[in-house]
Amino acid sequence: MISGKTKLIPLFGYPPTSVKAPFIYNPWFDKHEIDAMVVPMGIKPEDYPVSMKAIFNLSNVHGALVTMPHKITTMGLVDECSTTARIAGAANAILKRPDGSLLGDMFDGTGFLRGLQRKGFQCEGARGLVIGAGGVGSAIAASLAAGGMASIALFDVHAESAQGLAARLKTHYPGLEVRLTTTDPVGYDLIVNCTPLGMKPDDPLPFEVSRIAPTTFVGEVVMKHEITPMLKAAQARGCRFQVGADMLFEMIPPYLEFFGFGDSTPEELRSVAQIQY
Amino acid sequence: MISGKTKLIPLFGYPPTSVKAPFIYNPWFDKHEIDAMVVPMGIKPEDYPVSMKAIFNLSNVHGALVTMPHKITTMGLVDECSTTARIAGAANAILKRPDGSLLGDMFDGTGFLRGLQRKGFQCEGARGLVIGAGGVGSAIAASLAAGGMASIALFDVHAESAQGLAARLKTHYPGLEVRLTTTDPVGYDLIVNCTPLGMKPDDPLPFEVSRIAPTTFVGEVVMKHEITPMLKAAQARGCRFQVGADMLFEMIPPYLEFFGFGDSTPEELRSVAQIQY
Repeated sequence: MISGKTKLIPLFGYPPTSVKAPFIYNPWFDKHEIDAMVVPMGIKPEDYPVSMKAIFNLSNVHGALVTMPHKITTMGLVDECSTTARIAGAANAILKRPDGSLLGDMFDGTGFLRGLQRKGFQCEGARGLVIGAGGVGSAIAASLAAGGMASIALFDVHAESAQGLAARLKTHYPGLEVRLTTTDPVGYDLIVNCTPLGMKPDDPLPFEVSRIAPTTFVGEVVMKHEITPMLKAAQARGCRFQVGADMLFEMIPPYLEFFGFGDSTPEELRSVAQIQY
Repeated sequence: MISGKTKLIPLFGYPPTSVKAPFIYNPWFDKHEIDAMVVPMGIKPEDYPVSMKAIFNLSNVHGALVTMPHKITTMGLVDECSTTARIAGAANAILKRPDGSLLGDMFDGTGFLRGLQRKGFQCEGARGLVIGAGGVGSAIAASLAAGGMASIALFDVHAESAQGLAARLKTHYPGLEVRLTTTDPVGYDLIVNCTPLGMKPDDPLPFEVSRIAPTTFVGEVVMKHEITPMLKAAQARGCRFQVGADMLFEMIPPYLEFFGFGDSTPEELRSVAQIQY
């Protein structure tokens, strides 16, 4: 039951109608008797800079979740942001610190990386290919770099997106080998699809899965179907893989830590969630 | 369970820590399966003009409740306000209309008047004395005028407060007899204490209750004790009376109507409320 003492966690997005976070976080808060609540707030892009600042002036706002279309704009509105957020060029979480200053961070890639690690993938020294250098691809590449990958190859149909991400990775991780490449899947420990390919039934595969080595780990960000055509083909090759929704649930424990709400696990979050994935 | 489709009813106040409205409205919404939620928002006075406007830009905000210290400031921030709010000089409710414009209204006095009427007091043509011409006194006087009183006498230790309220009443109700007076309680059908006297144990009575006629109805706004010393003395004289908390619960049905949420009764609201009065 919300009261005047409840810590508000606004969820900034537009439109807000289909957000899922309240159905995961709020039951978890209830279970742990934490007096906090995720409150969806629909903000049009043109209103966001003013509204976001105004809402952080509320005395009972503790931090915020950020979703489409505000993740990039958030970077220019916070006082400080993490290296991962800088490489991603976007933030999906904002913490109000005791002095009132705002810290931005990005957990899309953190969730992806935690999922890999919990599935036994050895990130340190590995060679990865990230296909798609937009928002989620940038966030995942940033987290893979933070996780100790030896090299990250990038491909995007928009070459400048891949070039920009490569430059940001090199700036913050000078020791990392970064190169621009094609979708040729040969020679990697990890390949991640960070494009929307797989959402529509007649989408082509994001890369030629038939040429992949069975030792390559395959990661997916598309959540519309649990087993996308790419994952099905990789599975048939004997590859280990991670489904899109895993990223979502793996992301929430680091989010909750960031906000100071303690430890949780994806399994526990799935068990209390009031939605099905 | 809050979602991105839930209609938010922010409750603007500062500090927000002890607000009670969420414990009354939200259980009522739950009972009636209305997807709306009162969400306390603590706004410092200096931030209120900007924050209030920014929060009304949220696409899922339906209207707002307003409490201390923002009721007066609200009058200058809404696009239109009711006659009652204009006389009160304050608003405690804001509706966002379909075109986005903001309508302010004031229900403190409405609740008081409804309580009187439900206790059988005949307001039309009656003669009243309002002691205390501050926020709540102004709101109650405005509602008594709307209820058809023949005359309203006013007293305030700050003469200019009573003068200002008298002028506002005359502007909007030219046919109403309005006069400034003392606390002499003789000759009224209704006397209302709108001062804080009765909150502290050694407070004097707001008027000489021993001189009141047993036919006079006595109203109280102090909520700290159900039966204040004034009410106790009036009860001993055989007077009918209304306690402070009645105003609160009588106010909520017109509030809910204003927001378009349908009919309710104070009895039902008391029965679902998660707090004791």
